This record gives sequence, C-alpha cells and structure tokens, in this order.
Amino acid sequence: MKSELLLRTKKIQDKMIAQGIDACLIAGNANLYYISDRVFRGYVFVRQEGEPIYFVIRPVGLKGDNVIYIRKPEQIAEELVKLGIEMPKKLGLELDWLTFNDAKRLSSVFPEAEVCNSTGVLKGARMVKTDLEVAKMREDGRHQTAAYAKVPEIYKKGMTDLQFQIELERVLRLEGSIGFARVSGHLMEINLGSVLNGENADAPTPFDFAVGGSGVNQSLPVGANGKEMLDGTTVMVDMNGNFNGHQSDITRVWRIGKVDEMTEKAHEVSRQILREMEKMGVPGCKVADMYNRAIEIVEEAGLADYFMGHTQKAAFIGHGVGIELNEMPVLTPRSKDVLEANMTIAIEPKFVIPHVGAVGVENTYVVTSEGLENLTPFPEEMAEL
Amino acid sequence: MKSELLLRTKKIQDKMIAQGIDACLIAGNANLYYISDRVFRGYVFVRQEGEPIYFVIRPVGLKGDNVIYIRKPEQIAEELVKLGIEMPKKLGLELDWLTFNDAKRLSSVFPEAEVCNSTGVLKGARMVKTDLEVAKMREDGRHQTAAYAKVPEIYKKGMTDLQFQIELERVLRLEGSIGFARVSGHLMEINLGSVLNGENADAPTPFDFAVGGSGVNQSLPVGANGKEMLDGTTVMVDMNGNFNGHQSDITRVWRIGKVDEMTEKAHEVSRQILREMEKMGVPGCKVADMYNRAIEIVEEAGLADYFMGHTQKAAFIGHGVGIELNEMPVLTPRSKDVLEANMTIAIEPKFVIPHVGAVGVENTYVVTSEGLENLTPFPEEMAEL
Repeated sequence: MKSELLLRTKKIQDKMIAQGIDACLIAGNANLYYISDRVFRGYVFVRQEGEPIYFVIRPVGLKGDNVIYIRKPEQIAEELVKLGIEMPKKLGLELDWLTFNDAKRLSSVFPEAEVCNSTGVLKGARMVKTDLEVAKMREDGRHQTAAYAKVPEIYKKGMTDLQFQIELERVLRLEGSIGFARVSGHLMEINLGSVLNGENADAPTPFDFAVGGSGVNQSLPVGANGKEMLDGTTVMVDMNGNFNGHQSDITRVWRIGKVDEMTEKAHEVSRQILREMEKMGVPGCKVADMYNRAIEIVEEAGLADYFMGHTQKAAFIGHGVGIELNEMPVLTPRSKDVLEANMTIAIEPKFVIPHVGAVGVENTYVVTSEGLENLTPFPEEMAEL
Repeated sequence: MKSELLLRTKKIQDKMIAQGIDACLIAGNANLYYISDRVFRGYVFVRQEGEPIYFVIRPVGLKGDNVIYIRKPEQIAEELVKLGIEMPKKLGLELDWLTFNDAKRLSSVFPEAEVCNSTGVLKGARMVKTDLEVAKMREDGRHQTAAYAKVPEIYKKGMTDLQFQIELERVLRLEGSIGFARVSGHLMEINLGSVLNGENADAPTPFDFAVGGSGVNQSLPVGANGKEMLDGTTVMVDMNGNFNGHQSDITRVWRIGKVDEMTEKAHEVSRQILREMEKMGVPGCKVADMYNRAIEIVEEAGLADYFMGHTQKAAFIGHGVGIELNEMPVLTPRSKDVLEANMTIAIEPKFVIPHVGAVGVENTYVVTSEGLENLTPFPEEMAEL
C-alpha cells in the first residue's frame, strides 16, 4: 500500500506545484482515506515534495512512518518546527468542506500563510484513478451485480417498494456492502439507496440525484415511499455499491407485468445513449460534448419531456465516482472537463414516465484509449419480475 | 403542524433576542427540518418577530405560507426588499455547519450586516424539546424496542457479528427505521448502528462514539468487524432509532454462554448508575454533577479502568438526542449545561472488558420535574442468547 499512497501523494503534489501551493493540510474524511487508506480524526500535511505527515488525534495506537499524535490542531505548527520543516507561504485548506469556524481555526495555526482553497486540488487528483482504485471499483461492480442478480427472487407480488428495498439491502449487506454511502457535500443525504416504483419516480427531491422519489419521511425526502408495487409499473434499482471504501454505481430496471410502448422505447434509448457514450468516451473527449450528444439522441427519439426527470429535471447525465458517490467530472453542458485515461464515471441516462415509473440504465465506466470500459457488466434489458 | 412550527420559531427567536441577533438565515438540513418539518434545498429566514420566510431552491412544487422560490441565495436580499423587510444589522449564520465558502457567499448577500455564529442559538433552541418532539421520540422508543425484542430469534450460534447486525438491520427497517442516522458534524460517520462483540469492543475508533469497534473496512472504522461471536463474550446492540425524523438511542447487551463475574458486575453497575441518574435528573441539575456522580459509583466499584472504554476512553456518559443523534447537552465533567424540563438525553454508562466485550445499558430520557422519564423501557438484564 505504501507505494500506492506515494503515487496518490504525487498526484496531489503535481496539482499543488501547478497552483503554487506550498502545503495542503487535509482534514476531510474522504481525502484522509485517499491519502492514508484509513479514516482517522486528524490531519495530513502534504508538501510539494516528500512524504505526507500524519497528525493523528484519534484513534490511539496507529503506527507507521510520519505518524505524530496531537491533541489539537494548534500543535501542528510546533511539531513542524521540531521536524525542521519550513512554514508554508501559501497553504491549501478544503474551504468547500471545512466549516467556517474550523477553517478559521486551521488558518490561525499558520498566521503568516496566505490561505487558498485546496478542494479543487484534491478533487482533481482523485478524479483520475490509480490502477488499484480501478481494481477496487471493478470488485465493487462484481459484488453489486451479484446482489442485483437476486432481484427476481427477492420480489414478491403485492410487496411495497420499501419492503422490496429492505430485502435488497439485506442481500447487498450479505454480499459485503459496508452499509454506508459516502456522498460529497453535506446537502445530499441518502440511506442505502433508491428504489423507485410507479408514480413515485416523478416525485421531486431536494437532492441532486438523477431522479427523486418522496421517501417515507419528510426528513429524508428521496426514494421509496412505501406504496404497493402495481402491475404496469417499472421498478428502478439504484442501490449502494460501497464494498471496500470505493464505490460502483449501477442502475437497472425491471417491470411488473406489461408496460406501454413508450416506456419500453425510452429504456432502449437509454441503452443506445450508453453505447454511443462508450464509443465517444476516449481521452480528450469533452464531457459537455457527451451531454449534448445524449440530448440529441433523446430529441431525435421525441422523449425530451421525460429525460432526466419530468416534473423536476436533473441537469447532468453522469458523474465521477470513487471514494465518494458524486465526484468529478460531472457530465453537464457547461462543464469544461475533458476525459483522461483512468477517470471513472457513472453514466445514467434516465427517463421518468408519469404513472409508469423510471427507466434507463446506469453503468460505472473507466476511461481507456479505446473508449469507456464497463466495470459493471450485467444484463441491461428491462425484464419482467 | 403550523402551531408547532411557530412554537419552535419562538424558541429560536427568544435566543436571538437574548443575543441581539436581528435575523438568522438557516441552511443546515437538521435545522431546516426542525423549523419547517421537511428537508429541502434552500434557506429559512427567521427574524426576532413574525413567521419564518422559506426560500426554496428545490424541490419544485412546495406550497405554503411564506414560501418563495429562488435559484440562488443572492436573490434573498432582493426578495426581502420586495417584502419591505429591513436588512438585519446583526445576522446569524451556522458557522459551525456551513462550509467556509458557503458562509462567505451567504455573508456577501448581506454586505452591511455583522455576521455572527447562530449554531449555538439553534442547538440551544433544539436542546429543549416541544411536547410533540417528545411524543415522536416516545414513538421511536416503541419501535426500536420492538425490534430489539426480536434479538433472541435473530441470533444463531456460529454467526459473525456482522451477519447478526445485518439481520437486525432488516428487522429495524421492517419496523419502520428510515435507514439513516442523522449525526451532527461531518467528522462522525456510521451505517445503521453498532454491534460490538468480544474483543472488538476494545478496538479504538476515530469517532466520538461511546465505544468503538474496528469495522470491516478502514474507510468506516467503527462497529462490527465480521468475526464469529464466541462463547463467553457479550454482544452490545446500539442500533438505529430513527423512525420519524427524530431518533431514540438505546443500547442493550446479551451474553453468549457464561461470562465472568466482573463482567456481570460491570453491567449491574451501569444499571445502578442509570437509577441514580434518573433520580438526580430534575430541572436545575448540573450535567457535570451527573457525570461526576457516575464516576464516583464506578470508582467505588473498582471498575474505573473499564469505564467508557479501556484502550481508548470516551469523555462523556451521555448526550442530548433528537433530530440528530448527538445533540446538546453533553454529559461531561466540564459542561456548564443545566437540565431543563423537556430536554431529552441518552445516558450510556458503558464498560469495555478486554476479551469479553462491552456491557452497559443506554436509555433515552426526557427531563421532568420528578426526574428522568425513560422513553425507552425494555428489560435491561444481560440475558443469554
């Protein structure tokens, strides 16, 4: 693991050098996990060169190179002096993650430093995965599809969407899901995922997920709403893929009985979009072009009213995925991001058909010189439950 | 619900008046839920008098008095002008919750205002519950204990702690758990709760939970570790109690086969502490005194080495609970907080006995003039599985 962590460090350092940042003090759980392969309470100090220094508050007993125990962040400065390390002139802090008061406190540890936002440096470094990260996400995909394969045996006629989700949660957990979705930003909240059936698929959510659902309680207004799953509706399954700290993101759809022709067509258009994206998605491709090409296909099919939501629409068709469910790049028309090899992205062209439900497929891909490679192969047809 | 929300508003306004805050702009999900009975993306503007104004970004379609749709927070100022509302001279923002950059952005909407931290105003208002909130938590307690009652039928010899937890998660979800633990602060992460068996109970965690466990993955280092549950160990169950947006918090312990005398004794000392706390816990009681009295009882019993952890110790014996799992007051020796009627607190005197496991009981209480009333009645004895 040590060489892997130095590789990740190097990716961060390259971005720091490009932006003239002397040192970053990392505090966010996702970034701590990226740079140290574990979540702890404390900070990682990364300079333009050399190994990271791990300032640990909790838990007790961590061993390893460059591990220094502190009780509070104010001790970091004196520890750096002891090590003969120069104070940074320009210091990066995660200003899009740290609370206002925590950012002020950490800034005051380095009173001479100019503080800048390192959120982008870290998101940028994490956007392009190492081979080990891709391997972990491939493993996620194997587990998540193994759980999805059990959907037909989980479903029983007359179930509510929630009863169905609960049985699927159990299967995912037995398959190794750690039972937790790490999401970027504190505005989005979710439990172990989303099952959307029938007209609930058109209920708008406050969160930036591709589709909504009202949830069972207004404190968590997303996903299954506890209604019985009726004949002539679709069941969209977009559940947790976190089996090892990195995540895969997969959506598949089943139907209960028969659904109308437009619903069937919309599902096939989603698959057609994915085939097109898989070809387009080579290094150098602009993600905005991918979004726009998807919209073209949808408009040719005459389905624009239903694409990425109906009553409320999402403004993207895919997103990076890794340690967090929602990473860079985001596939929007305004993005300036360009694909690079080893980016991992979940693409989820989805349609909401009023009164029927949601359709579409989501796969997690890795960018290769030959296009997108699917890390989550699993039958995409809308089968009957 | 409207009169309930105005009651909650009044509690916030009283604290604002005491601190000379003209208006608070509320953005955090837990606080949004408190003041509006739903989570949405947007802001609530609360003045010293009058009803709150709800600035909603998403979802589409919310109805109600004082609901104003905006696309971005910068529009709040112009909307207030339209309503003839004076700009606040002193503005409260949740500076312990908002990111640094979001706090800067919201501050710039009110360029003339002095910005202060309203985190404490909101935590303070939420610390003393309304009768409706207490009733919701009583309902949580009924559901959570109904799930715990099924523990003996869930357990099967040879199970791992994780397999056991997964079956209990399913039972909790079928009983109505919304499958999500809302925790204050972004340093603490957890899935649907904690099952601690055997020596894993002594594994330290980075998080501020009463006891630890290594978890199954270093990205979420807390709770069950996937090992078989052996004879002569204890099983501590401290799982999710969020059935309606408010939460109860309950811990019970079972044993597998026989455990040694000290372990049995420690469990009974925990119960003895709770009986003492129940009597002490009248309005006016200092929470620091409760902590210190608990320590006295533990020291008299000669069990101080094992109290609130062994390898790593927690610095509290209880905490407020409500919309978030960890609210005010926190029962520590340094706290200045004093009990008031209708505070709800979870008290969890726990012991970690090396190689055997954790013991102790946690109940959620409401403060009344006669002492603490248990919202979570359920047998406390350490029964055999």
